[in-house]
Parts: sequence; structure tokens; C-alpha cells
Amino acid sequence: MLSGTFISFEGPDGAGKTSALAAITAKIQPELGDRLTITREPGGNPISESIRTIILDRANTAMDYRTEALLYAAARRQHMAETVLPALANDQLVLCDRYVDSSIAYQGAGRQIGEDAVAQMNTFATDGLLPDLTVYFDVPAEVGLRRIQAHRQADQVDRLDVEQEAFHDRVRAAYLRLQRANPERIKLIDATQSPDQVVAEALALIKQTAKRYF
Amino acid sequence: MLSGTFISFEGPDGAGKTSALAAITAKIQPELGDRLTITREPGGNPISESIRTIILDRANTAMDYRTEALLYAAARRQHMAETVLPALANDQLVLCDRYVDSSIAYQGAGRQIGEDAVAQMNTFATDGLLPDLTVYFDVPAEVGLRRIQAHRQADQVDRLDVEQEAFHDRVRAAYLRLQRANPERIKLIDATQSPDQVVAEALALIKQTAKRYF
Repeated sequence: MLSGTFISFEGPDGAGKTSALAAITAKIQPELGDRLTITREPGGNPISESIRTIILDRANTAMDYRTEALLYAAARRQHMAETVLPALANDQLVLCDRYVDSSIAYQGAGRQIGEDAVAQMNTFATDGLLPDLTVYFDVPAEVGLRRIQAHRQADQVDRLDVEQEAFHDRVRAAYLRLQRANPERIKLIDATQSPDQVVAEALALIKQTAKRYF
Repeated sequence: MLSGTFISFEGPDGAGKTSALAAITAKIQPELGDRLTITREPGGNPISESIRTIILDRANTAMDYRTEALLYAAARRQHMAETVLPALANDQLVLCDRYVDSSIAYQGAGRQIGEDAVAQMNTFATDGLLPDLTVYFDVPAEVGLRRIQAHRQADQVDRLDVEQEAFHDRVRAAYLRLQRANPERIKLIDATQSPDQVVAEALALIKQTAKRYF
């Protein structure tokens, strides 16, 4: 049985969720030790990394959007099989940077191949496993994009970054729809606040859902 | 609009469908010329070939069965996008060696991850496109396996061949269920007959469905 607690971090690019996850890890790792697993797709296993290489190869300009969505789901499944499910079976607290909601927002709404279709296909990939809590870091598209541009070098920009603001607007709108449709699972944080405030709110949500680890 | 005609060839390993397809191609290619597209997944495009490499790599022993099914679906989607859909849009007769039914039989039933689940996920991959005709080459599992062992060198045996007869029994049973559930689309040929007889029956089915090309 999966006795652990599964928490995903979600949000548009530039929302600051990855930095927040690092700050939260620094705060709780000393107390939780090996009861804590911090992870993100593709998660370091060879199969998911190989899949990720295909997705992000800028030479693959002919990639169909459904192919892309299926590859993300395949990498997700393997990451679950090798990292997330064993950790949950081992009673750990698992914090995961991005999960199914990212695919619904980015592929379903951003790429416009259908949020329901992508959600349903991911139900196959995950065998229906949803997080106990999803912390959603909300920022307007233009704020997120400005942060990305400020932080990256030109040669670090991958294929997914080469998208228009309209794409990011659709992504954020989908996240907001997901949050409204799943208010018990998905909790929204205003990620335009100061990093310290964002971290404090996220940590409070985590402690509420994963009380017994603290 | 997809004005062409789409025909898939299906069957267990060793059923002889690939040889039959080659014989049929030799017979009809002179008459049909560039109105004919003969193809098989992964279909020669770089993205699907890269995906296929991951699937068949015998080093990937940790591959989860759902990951495998998603990768097959991703390779299928890309092959559709680059080869099948353009040919159908160009009013061609497309003969394709394996399609969705293979995934339902091999992953759904063979790997036991669920025929309905695999079918539904492939509806996402194909956007619901089914062949106008599926020619199913039926042989008992032990006949097919004996033929494979006779024809391959040991170093040509890939990961999928290293399976037990029980797996191949499940695959064949799933094909037979699919045929019974879709008798209009899927036509069964007894592939234990002589190769000439099998080719003659397959060609007759093709000419019936794709009359206007002949």
C-alpha cells in the first residue's frame, strides 16, 4: 500500500516554484531526513532521461503535439515507477516538482489538444494516482515570462521557451480552471508576493496535509 | 479531408503478415504506382526511430509496462503525423504493418495492463482514426513461435521476443476478441494455410475495400 504522502508543485514558468521547493527542502530536510523524497520529472532514471532528450531536442521541429504529450506521459510513468511509487510505498513524504496538472495546462491548453483528452490519457499513465495536495504557484503570464528572461542565458533557452505570451496565458487560465474544479486538492498561492512569503505559505500548506511527518 | 483508404495488417509474431505484405506490394505496386503507400511503425522518421530505440533497448529492463505502451503510442502518433495522414490526405491507398490493435493485443492483453485502458489511450494517440479495413493473420501461438525461432539468429532476438508462450496465447486471444467485436472492420485470415493462399485471400479483401484503386 502507498502509505506515504504525495505533494506536487505546479505553476507557469517563472512562478518561482522550483526556488521555493529548494528553500522548503533546506528548511525541512534536517528534521525529516530519509522520510523525505524531493523529486522532479524526468527524475534521473535512464529511460525518462532518454525520453526527455527527445522532447527537448530543438532539432525535432516536426514533433506532433500529441506525440509530445505522450512522451511527457511516458517519462512521468517511468519516474513514478522508479521513484514516486517506491517512496510512497516506503511511507515517505514526496514533494514533486510538476505532475499531471502540468500536462493538462501545457499540452492540453497551451498546445490546444484538449484538456480533457490529456487528462484522460494521463489517467492511464498514472493509473489514476493524484497527489494528496498540489501547491499551485500563480503568476500572470507576463510576470513569469519576465522572470525567465532575466534569469536565463540565451543558450539555455529550450524549445518550450520559444513560445508566445498567448501560450502562457492559456497555460495559466488552465491552471486556474483546474484549481477551481479541484479546490480540495489544489491550493493557490499568490506567487507575485515576496519569495519569503511564498515559501511560508507553501510550507504551511505542506505541514497541514503532512502533519504526521512534523 | 482524408480521402484515401487506410488498411492495417495485424497478427501475432510469426503469422507471416510482413511476408504477405511484401508479396502483395510486389503484385499491386506496378498498377498503383504513387497512389500506394506501404509503411510500418516506426516508419523511418527520426522521432519515432528514437522512441523505438528506447523501447527495444535490452538494457532497459526497468521499463514499466505502461511506459512501454505510452512510447508505442507516441511513436505511432508521430508516424501518423509524418506518413499516414499526409498519404491519406493525398488520396492514397495506405497499407500499414501493425497499428492500434497491436497495442491492445500486446500491451493490453500480453502485458496485462488492460485492453480497454490501452484502447482508450490510443484513441488519444490516433485522434480516433481507425483503418477502413484490418487484415488479421491468425495463427496459434505455438505455430507463430516456431516460425520465429526458425527464421531468426540468436543475436536478432530483441527484448519482446524473450517472452513465454503464455504471453503469445494472451495476444492471440485478444486479437480474436477484437475481431469478434469489430467484424466489419477486422477480417480474419487463417494464416496456417500456404503463403500463396494467404496472400490471395488478403489481396481479395484489399481489393474489396479499396475497389476504386484497381
